Amino acid sequence: MNKIEALKNLLLKTRKATEEICAPLEVEDYVPQPMEDVSPPKWHLAHSTWFFEQFVLVPNDPDYRIFSPDFAYLFNSYYNNAGDRVLRPNRGLMSRPPVREVIAYRQYVTEALLKFMDKSDLSSEILAVITLGVNHEQQHQELLVYDIKYILGNQPTFPIYGDSFSLQKEKMERTFIQFKEGIYAIGASEDDFCFDNECGQHKVFLHDFQIADTLVTNGEYMEFMAAGGYGDFNLWLAEGWDYILKEKIQAPFYWHQQDEKWFQYTFQGFREVEKELPVAHLSFYEALAFATWKGMRLPTEFEWEVAADRLNWGQLWEWTYSAYHPYPGFKKAPGALGEYNGKFMINQNVLRGASVATPKGHSRKTYRNFFPASSRWLFSGIRLAK
Amino acid sequence: MNKIEALKNLLLKTRKATEEICAPLEVEDYVPQPMEDVSPPKWHLAHSTWFFEQFVLVPNDPDYRIFSPDFAYLFNSYYNNAGDRVLRPNRGLMSRPPVREVIAYRQYVTEALLKFMDKSDLSSEILAVITLGVNHEQQHQELLVYDIKYILGNQPTFPIYGDSFSLQKEKMERTFIQFKEGIYAIGASEDDFCFDNECGQHKVFLHDFQIADTLVTNGEYMEFMAAGGYGDFNLWLAEGWDYILKEKIQAPFYWHQQDEKWFQYTFQGFREVEKELPVAHLSFYEALAFATWKGMRLPTEFEWEVAADRLNWGQLWEWTYSAYHPYPGFKKAPGALGEYNGKFMINQNVLRGASVATPKGHSRKTYRNFFPASSRWLFSGIRLAK
Amino acid sequence: MNKIEALKNLLLKTRKATEEICAPLEVEDYVPQPMEDVSPPKWHLAHSTWFFEQFVLVPNDPDYRIFSPDFAYLFNSYYNNAGDRVLRPNRGLMSRPPVREVIAYRQYVTEALLKFMDKSDLSSEILAVITLGVNHEQQHQELLVYDIKYILGNQPTFPIYGDSFSLQKEKMERTFIQFKEGIYAIGASEDDFCFDNECGQHKVFLHDFQIADTLVTNGEYMEFMAAGGYGDFNLWLAEGWDYILKEKIQAPFYWHQQDEKWFQYTFQGFREVEKELPVAHLSFYEALAFATWKGMRLPTEFEWEVAADRLNWGQLWEWTYSAYHPYPGFKKAPGALGEYNGKFMINQNVLRGASVATPKGHSRKTYRNFFPASSRWLFSGIRLAK
Amino acid sequence: MNKIEALKNLLLKTRKATEEICAPLEVEDYVPQPMEDVSPPKWHLAHSTWFFEQFVLVPNDPDYRIFSPDFAYLFNSYYNNAGDRVLRPNRGLMSRPPVREVIAYRQYVTEALLKFMDKSDLSSEILAVITLGVNHEQQHQELLVYDIKYILGNQPTFPIYGDSFSLQKEKMERTFIQFKEGIYAIGASEDDFCFDNECGQHKVFLHDFQIADTLVTNGEYMEFMAAGGYGDFNLWLAEGWDYILKEKIQAPFYWHQQDEKWFQYTFQGFREVEKELPVAHLSFYEALAFATWKGMRLPTEFEWEVAADRLNWGQLWEWTYSAYHPYPGFKKAPGALGEYNGKFMINQNVLRGASVATPKGHSRKTYRNFFPASSRWLFSGIRLAK
Repeated sequence: MNKIEALKNLLLKTRKATEEICAPLEVEDYVPQPMEDVSPPKWHLAHSTWFFEQFVLVPNDPDYRIFSPDFAYLFNSYYNNAGDRVLRPNRGLMSRPPVREVIAYRQYVTEALLKFMDKSDLSSEILAVITLGVNHEQQHQELLVYDIKYILGNQPTFPIYGDSFSLQKEKMERTFIQFKEGIYAIGASEDDFCFDNECGQHKVFLHDFQIADTLVTNGEYMEFMAAGGYGDFNLWLAEGWDYILKEKIQAPFYWHQQDEKWFQYTFQGFREVEKELPVAHLSFYEALAFATWKGMRLPTEFEWEVAADRLNWGQLWEWTYSAYHPYPGFKKAPGALGEYNGKFMINQNVLRGASVATPKGHSRKTYRNFFPASSRWLFSGIRLAK
Repeated sequence: MNKIEALKNLLLKTRKATEEICAPLEVEDYVPQPMEDVSPPKWHLAHSTWFFEQFVLVPNDPDYRIFSPDFAYLFNSYYNNAGDRVLRPNRGLMSRPPVREVIAYRQYVTEALLKFMDKSDLSSEILAVITLGVNHEQQHQELLVYDIKYILGNQPTFPIYGDSFSLQKEKMERTFIQFKEGIYAIGASEDDFCFDNECGQHKVFLHDFQIADTLVTNGEYMEFMAAGGYGDFNLWLAEGWDYILKEKIQAPFYWHQQDEKWFQYTFQGFREVEKELPVAHLSFYEALAFATWKGMRLPTEFEWEVAADRLNWGQLWEWTYSAYHPYPGFKKAPGALGEYNGKFMINQNVLRGASVATPKGHSRKTYRNFFPASSRWLFSGIRLAK
Repeated sequence: MNKIEALKNLLLKTRKATEEICAPLEVEDYVPQPMEDVSPPKWHLAHSTWFFEQFVLVPNDPDYRIFSPDFAYLFNSYYNNAGDRVLRPNRGLMSRPPVREVIAYRQYVTEALLKFMDKSDLSSEILAVITLGVNHEQQHQELLVYDIKYILGNQPTFPIYGDSFSLQKEKMERTFIQFKEGIYAIGASEDDFCFDNECGQHKVFLHDFQIADTLVTNGEYMEFMAAGGYGDFNLWLAEGWDYILKEKIQAPFYWHQQDEKWFQYTFQGFREVEKELPVAHLSFYEALAFATWKGMRLPTEFEWEVAADRLNWGQLWEWTYSAYHPYPGFKKAPGALGEYNGKFMINQNVLRGASVATPKGHSRKTYRNFFPASSRWLFSGIRLAK
Repeated sequence: MNKIEALKNLLLKTRKATEEICAPLEVEDYVPQPMEDVSPPKWHLAHSTWFFEQFVLVPNDPDYRIFSPDFAYLFNSYYNNAGDRVLRPNRGLMSRPPVREVIAYRQYVTEALLKFMDKSDLSSEILAVITLGVNHEQQHQELLVYDIKYILGNQPTFPIYGDSFSLQKEKMERTFIQFKEGIYAIGASEDDFCFDNECGQHKVFLHDFQIADTLVTNGEYMEFMAAGGYGDFNLWLAEGWDYILKEKIQAPFYWHQQDEKWFQYTFQGFREVEKELPVAHLSFYEALAFATWKGMRLPTEFEWEVAADRLNWGQLWEWTYSAYHPYPGFKKAPGALGEYNGKFMINQNVLRGASVATPKGHSRKTYRNFFPASSRWLFSGIRLAK
């Protein structure tokens, strides 16, 4: 199978996977936007399609006729270079177009892409943009999972989604793996696909460090809660302390206390918290407070990357105490695609690893995920370092 | 046809009418809540049903089994006496239950009501509550029309709803009808159904007044706009002036300027403004500023009621310069139904008349509608007085 | 003493009285604006002076030279017709001009006024504006008292102001005075000074009513509190209920609970609440909830005016269940002075009577004071009706 | 002069310097808090005193009697371990205690400190806390300058403060100094005083870099403005772009455009912008947008420290593209003093160098200043790197 066939296969598989994530939903579930960070599922379906239409078909395929002039406006996310857009907090007001039209849009664009790829002479630039489009859609698959969980988990009736994306128990004994100080190579080598934020290998000096071989579990986190962790300001960053007071946070997101027991909303419904599972849905503030309470710390993203080959990772994204800043020599691509990553490089923390919601083939040890320190709806967890 | 049969017919007709208002909608349109005042259509469908279940069936029909225990919580609006409820601004987050379950809920309750009414010996108290439930549902029918217009009118694509609820041209010559000072009787006589806020006839002294026999038209209002009405603070209440500055209001709601022409969103789509139609979707502030610009004023609710028999009314609710306060001798009913009207009697203005969205048979000259002075999504208009 | 001499005396006395109210203050107390409704004392001193400069001297006295061009901008309150102004919430940021310059400004303008009034031929229009200026300054005297109490009462150290403006015990037995239904004359006759909002006698029909001859006391109000009045939503307007929940209100303003006893900040310091004093610093919502709990109601402003000659009034402004709306035939004056009252006629309630903070000679039975239903820092109280 | 005498001298000199910064103020200027970040000068005077009282005298001097029990509460800043405190945004409401009492408090504590230091046997721990108190007061001196400029610069009258803290022209030719890649030592060595955030030497690997020997000037920045820099979103971080749109930022803070010319508020009054002076009062967003427009970047804090000995620095703090995070091995001190720095280590950027407002002897090349990326009232500037 040649390179183009492989890409076509990957494209088709990715497009289908997005729709499968939505299969358990009611039509009504595609619409709401319960907080600004969460986008309606309908919007993800359309936006990941718009990306291909806008950046692959419109500029490169003279035979392509756009599906609808409205959609360019409706499903742009943040690309200032690509024209006006619906303001982010208003996505949940868009009952139109209905879901069935969005599905038709998806099919139309997928078919046009495949047809376009069958034509000879696709430049490496075009192939790169299609590959980026696939990776972009995979990122939205993961966000779709987060957002669906948020939408369903905020229904008073806690509906069941299904068995996908469930967590496994962690190994109960924890070992700290040791690393020696020295110069290490960090970053992706650019032989394979990488995002601009992780590309460009460079050197970093690390001092001696140790990193845990397991994630922190619900059981350990409940000990922290029982010990008054949410009430002891000495464990918290000032900003985190203000945050938990203002938001009245006393437990991980999706947790609820009933009759002195802790329950949590999961995709399989409302269930008692299981101690052996890794603790999830924490802000960076909570992760750090826990580590501080343990007398330990969180790893930096560089320590994590150096250690990655010796860790089990992939259940939950792991908060690092590293700012999401550019690597040495980072350059934005020209045009709209240059808006992909660079403009978010301030006041966010890097998370490393992957989660059960990460599409297969989308994870690698150089991958830099990033969220504001207060985010809790993503599939995040804690790995300790010292 | 006896009284109970008549009520059964009215009930059935009313229940059906609610569903017919929703007929042109997509499933997705039932979900969003684009501002706090607007409720999702799904919510109206369920809440008007919940009212019958909660206040007629549950306390009076020993054979009745509630449709779902969740619904009592989900579709309570503001009845503190009836238990906890979903906070108003969160109604748009409820993708569940899906529309089809709400429709099933409606049918289940309608059938249970009819069966219950077939049993002998319905007390006059029960009949009164059923009658109140019908009137309550009629009120929600009108709100449904407002809310559907708001939801559709805020889609970037301005979808068409249909030909219902459209306005007719006003008579072009205006006459002012004169009334002499004296004592007048105000309020409903309680022989027929009336809401508690309008019941209890009492006397009011009115000075000489004159009232217009037509509503103000779009054409007249465009003259006000062209004369700089939105820019001259001397025409405005201080609160209204702050409001239009803050909200950047320069025209009635649903109006849009394109190439120096004024267009408006209507249920029939996006159309150029017609001068002969009555101007609609104005706040009290705008209505009063217009009247001030004309060197006139708005009527009080008492003047309006006295004049009503000599007016054509019913296209648009008419703002009065009367506060929505209790009539002399007003008493709240005991229990949850006492929360129906009295608790809203502060900082709202009375509107009199009816609108094209008012269900047939639901209007009368003593009817007191009420909204905050800033409300613009209702079907409101202007009648001048002097 | 002729009419002009009398006005000069009144002017001088009024100017001095303003300064005496401020005598107990530290320089620092003249600066803060702890909430938007409260103006810094410095601002009152300057603004009441600006009024005379702007509306008497500048337009009428060709010899007058303004004190400082900055002041016209700095101390305009809300007169849009008089040019730009400092936004209300920013008054507390103005540390400059220092207090001593404001005092110099006061003296400069007072002297210029007296000199101007010594010239012959003051038209009746000019005398009317000077009289209005005096009444305007008297209104600001009362606001000064409210604002000083707010500023001092929100110091963690509860400083003592002095013995002025203290309340007397109410008579302990309450009688309800009865009035018969009929047509009554309402409003000021315009022989003496009146504000535009109270001028214009007109007729009102009143039904039979009874009104209490004493104000509600702290002791009675504590019974309401002890009976759970702040926790029973059936006693409250919906807007009031939301307000006390949001603001966490459980007692009148300035009250503090310590060791199960109630204390309050007074101008004489922090003291235990005395049961026989009239209860003060209540919102309209609280006044109405109390009346509802008593099975009574609040009077309308018309009932109050009709009864006034048979009541003792003047300790506290009395909330009425009347909207602050225009009387029949109300007309705004042309120009900036037309902004005095009319533009506030929406969403405020009328209070009748006077308070211990009202300057001598400034009260009369036709006087219409007005505040939003949520205001609590004014000297307000409760008189019951039925 | 022995070590204790030297510290006494430094203490006395520092206490006096604080008061000299306030000498040009009116009493009224000590009171306002025009935004949350700005504290009233009175508060700085008292808080820097409270620090000595709370952390030196109270725990260590058995003869010391506190000046006033209220002050411990009133002038605590953010030390949760030291008890309750006035909420930060409410500092400007505290007209009491008056300035003269705060001055008396200062003298009382200074004298008590000197007396205490004359006693024999001061442990090195106590000397360390006194030294920290001196450095703490020096930090507040710099904040005092920022806050005074903010308070005065937001007076509509733009009052003159005086000639202190004025900027010098930059050298007009810029050279980029080159550094080779390699391992460098970063951080203070702890022989002299250092804050906990800079202590602990450690190694950092740096790639080749170049850094400018001058700061960016007003003239250069005006070129950026003239080229549309504030209107081209491609130059901005997404968060910065939202920020300048929301705050309507089109120029550095304190700049005003009049008749096509740029003026700025300075301590010497309102003046036309001088091209040769370094541009000041910029957010990190603006600094980075300027660098991006130049095709360059901002240095990291490590590059800056490595280069420091070859740079002229000290007119303005220089934004770096480094997050304010802990150095390897960072440990919080136990107790309240542990709250000094560590708890702020999230979502802030490091600034390096010093400014004309930095007290003499308070700057060193390892010093880590830090502010949120949006801060503009500090004395900040731009140094380019590549």
